[in-house]
Amino acid sequence: MYLKTQDWEAFEQRYRAAFINSISGHKPVFLVGTQDLEDQTNLAVFSSVFHLGSNPALFGMISRPHSVERHTLQNILDLKFYTLNGVKADFFEKAHQTSARYPKETSEFSAVGLTPIYDNNFKAPGVQESPVRMGLELVRTIDLEENQTVLVIGKLQYCFFEEDTQREDGMMDFSSFNLVGVQGLDTYFSSQLVGCLPYAKP
Amino acid sequence: MYLKTQDWEAFEQRYRAAFINSISGHKPVFLVGTQDLEDQTNLAVFSSVFHLGSNPALFGMISRPHSVERHTLQNILDLKFYTLNGVKADFFEKAHQTSARYPKETSEFSAVGLTPIYDNNFKAPGVQESPVRMGLELVRTIDLEENQTVLVIGKLQYCFFEEDTQREDGMMDFSSFNLVGVQGLDTYFSSQLVGCLPYAKP
Repeated sequence: MYLKTQDWEAFEQRYRAAFINSISGHKPVFLVGTQDLEDQTNLAVFSSVFHLGSNPALFGMISRPHSVERHTLQNILDLKFYTLNGVKADFFEKAHQTSARYPKETSEFSAVGLTPIYDNNFKAPGVQESPVRMGLELVRTIDLEENQTVLVIGKLQYCFFEEDTQREDGMMDFSSFNLVGVQGLDTYFSSQLVGCLPYAKP
Repeated sequence: MYLKTQDWEAFEQRYRAAFINSISGHKPVFLVGTQDLEDQTNLAVFSSVFHLGSNPALFGMISRPHSVERHTLQNILDLKFYTLNGVKADFFEKAHQTSARYPKETSEFSAVGLTPIYDNNFKAPGVQESPVRMGLELVRTIDLEENQTVLVIGKLQYCFFEEDTQREDGMMDFSSFNLVGVQGLDTYFSSQLVGCLPYAKP
């Protein structure tokens, strides 16, 4: 099956979005926890979080354009702090449900049945049910003129792991947490180890 | 296990890199195919590719700083075209091996034993063994002053799939391809379906 630009440009809009969203493969999923200036909590599922650097510890994520209502981005811009929370297979339906368009005055935490937690008084709520939680401070946003999306760059402030599964080389082994990833917009996967390889030399 | 900034800042550099790289979870893996101005091919494994938008179809990826030798970024800047190739479990060791520091005059295709293919005369080589191949044209790069990495934005030009596994809603179902993802720098995973959920409504 071989497709060119004119093929997907002719697709119906939602069909094209499902297609293009799916071809970047299995993506990590995080629940992003924020609150607004009135301490109203918000929770939203994102599949665009990526590692940006280890020193300093930076993560990027992509938010939808300024032209649509995006409670998460507005809260991050207002209060500068947010959390990233891993999604376990046993609550992936709740995580997905946060993508529904709830009105601003509804907290997705209570709407979907997840519990806000403020690790060490961090200024944004985490998800108590998540076995992996990270707190970030906004570094800056970059508006991407190509499609009006917004790159959000954050610096890691804390991380919490339900168990200490750190390997001898420093890596966290997440296999006992049973986290899910997503392909496309709606298809969730768990992971199975294929192999761990040594540092490659020519 | 609860860690704060001073904890990972005190880690030895490679230990910290392994730690921070691992906590963003299971990432997609792509082999990036390019060539230089002398038609020398290059192949490199990346785990920082992300979906940026469906209309136009845009993907982002993060490259290391300009201050180090990065054949892939230089080739993309020189020739404007590159391919993204999914990694099957049956050649993940070869994909990983492309991360070794080969000299510029060595093609990773021949060094690791993968086959370059020019789908429909595209201006960058794909990986024949990959069941999912995409060709992209550079839109622009953005230097990220926070850590001197470079965001590469590309526009999809073509895609190839070994089988037509497109669902009724447009999404490509990759399960038959047995693609791998990576956690951290060296630990590869395959995916197992957990569930496919309907569009969420309040």
